[in-house]
Amino acid sequence: MPQYYDSLEARDPEERERLLMAALPGQIAHAKRKAPGWARILADVDPAGVTSRATLAKLPVTRKSDLAKLQRAERPFGGLNATLAQLGKVFVSPGPIYEPEGRGRDWWRTARALFAAGFRPGDLAINTFAYHFTPAGSMLESGALALGCTVVPTGTGQTEMQAATLADLQASAYIGTPSFLKLIVEKADELKADIRSLKKAAVGAEYLPPALRAACAQRGIRVLQSYASADLGLIAYESDALEGMILDEALILEIVRPGTGDPVPDGEIGEVVVTSFNPDYPLMRFGTGDLSAIL
Amino acid sequence: MPQYYDSLEARDPEERERLLMAALPGQIAHAKRKAPGWARILADVDPAGVTSRATLAKLPVTRKSDLAKLQRAERPFGGLNATLAQLGKVFVSPGPIYEPEGRGRDWWRTARALFAAGFRPGDLAINTFAYHFTPAGSMLESGALALGCTVVPTGTGQTEMQAATLADLQASAYIGTPSFLKLIVEKADELKADIRSLKKAAVGAEYLPPALRAACAQRGIRVLQSYASADLGLIAYESDALEGMILDEALILEIVRPGTGDPVPDGEIGEVVVTSFNPDYPLMRFGTGDLSAIL
Repeated sequence: MPQYYDSLEARDPEERERLLMAALPGQIAHAKRKAPGWARILADVDPAGVTSRATLAKLPVTRKSDLAKLQRAERPFGGLNATLAQLGKVFVSPGPIYEPEGRGRDWWRTARALFAAGFRPGDLAINTFAYHFTPAGSMLESGALALGCTVVPTGTGQTEMQAATLADLQASAYIGTPSFLKLIVEKADELKADIRSLKKAAVGAEYLPPALRAACAQRGIRVLQSYASADLGLIAYESDALEGMILDEALILEIVRPGTGDPVPDGEIGEVVVTSFNPDYPLMRFGTGDLSAIL
Repeated sequence: MPQYYDSLEARDPEERERLLMAALPGQIAHAKRKAPGWARILADVDPAGVTSRATLAKLPVTRKSDLAKLQRAERPFGGLNATLAQLGKVFVSPGPIYEPEGRGRDWWRTARALFAAGFRPGDLAINTFAYHFTPAGSMLESGALALGCTVVPTGTGQTEMQAATLADLQASAYIGTPSFLKLIVEKADELKADIRSLKKAAVGAEYLPPALRAACAQRGIRVLQSYASADLGLIAYESDALEGMILDEALILEIVRPGTGDPVPDGEIGEVVVTSFNPDYPLMRFGTGDLSAIL
């Protein structure tokens, strides 16, 4: 079994850092040129001068909590998107906050997380994340399709039909929340549906109780989790090592003192701030509102 | 505005018929070679001999009502599919009946119907067909994406959020059932949401009342319908001419006396029987159970 999704994962950490920093000026320039919102927010920033974490840390943090207001002032994306005509989809989260999906393979970059969770070409996966309004279903579906898996887009609810589908199709994989995995497995037991084909589960969007992971492992289902957002796509994911989460290769993550833009020392808990290299939706120092620490 | 989706639509009818008949032997041979179900059903058929409607009419009709039983005997598709590993998705309809979706652009061929309904690159369309279990959402989404439209996958329900999304995003197009279009437009009026951006609607899956079409036209929304199925994808669609429906280019349609395989004369009502040229799911004389007539 191959160990890495691609060679990016096996890079020397210093090499990775050097290449991410080298990519910053181009991405900031792209955002300022194509996205009027970033042109305003970064008006005083010379892209060529942002080539290190220290210089990046001087840029303002734009918070997820600002999006609804920015978007009300300028539909649909508050001027933070760099493309519009090329978009494939637009999603709607409560607020409302509108989120773009571009075109092309694995736009949300979730294939990497699914690979780490053991997903391989030919796996048949039920995708129980919702597809309506929210991007969750599409985010994971596009990654699974890019990996060569076949997806059964079941969405949420209808637990009995989920268990029957798993058993009938002898699905090998599950995508969804941990709590819904628990419900489906319990329902299958209740219905005496044979779901021994189910070997791997990629979960997210909520807390994964260690007891649930252990109980699933006992019946042969390996459960790994990932962390993604409707704005950024994949941010981090677990691998077999199960030692915290591994950062996605295509973004710069900072942990800042909440409410500020000031990075905290490694190991200290703070707000997750991400700079993405997505060409359609280039988010520069985007404050997720989530708390974490770099270990 | 271009009149045709592609040059196939402008072919001379005799040329179309000649090419469809010429393609039959290859498709039947493919189905027999790759799909064990068709190898059984068409065991006595020499593909090379099926080159006309008369010879096609001697093949057995396989009915949609047979699928659940065939599939219970052989998961997932009763041996009627010619590919498995290459599939992108599997859907579940009540029965249960499992339906495959292959990979590649516009697999369900719905772009042609959307084009006829006035959809063009750059249109922003809310797709209110469901994405969960059923293929309807994916069927129309893939066609809209292939056309270069941007899709808001809203799914069914949440009428108030649908109206607000239409108004906020100034969507130009609607995809879904006629009755849900009516609900959304009424809800928008009730909320005083400005949905004057909405200019076109592609509807299906249920009867379109002429009064609804007329009422929509009065407020500037052009409504056209299409006829598709979860097994075959697009079968027929309306164009501006509004004189019945136009057959999709990629299938052979027969109208047979219900319960038999015998074609009825043109103009007589009977069961719709379709032979598809889909390489992943080659359905040979598939009885839809729907009634229609060739005019």
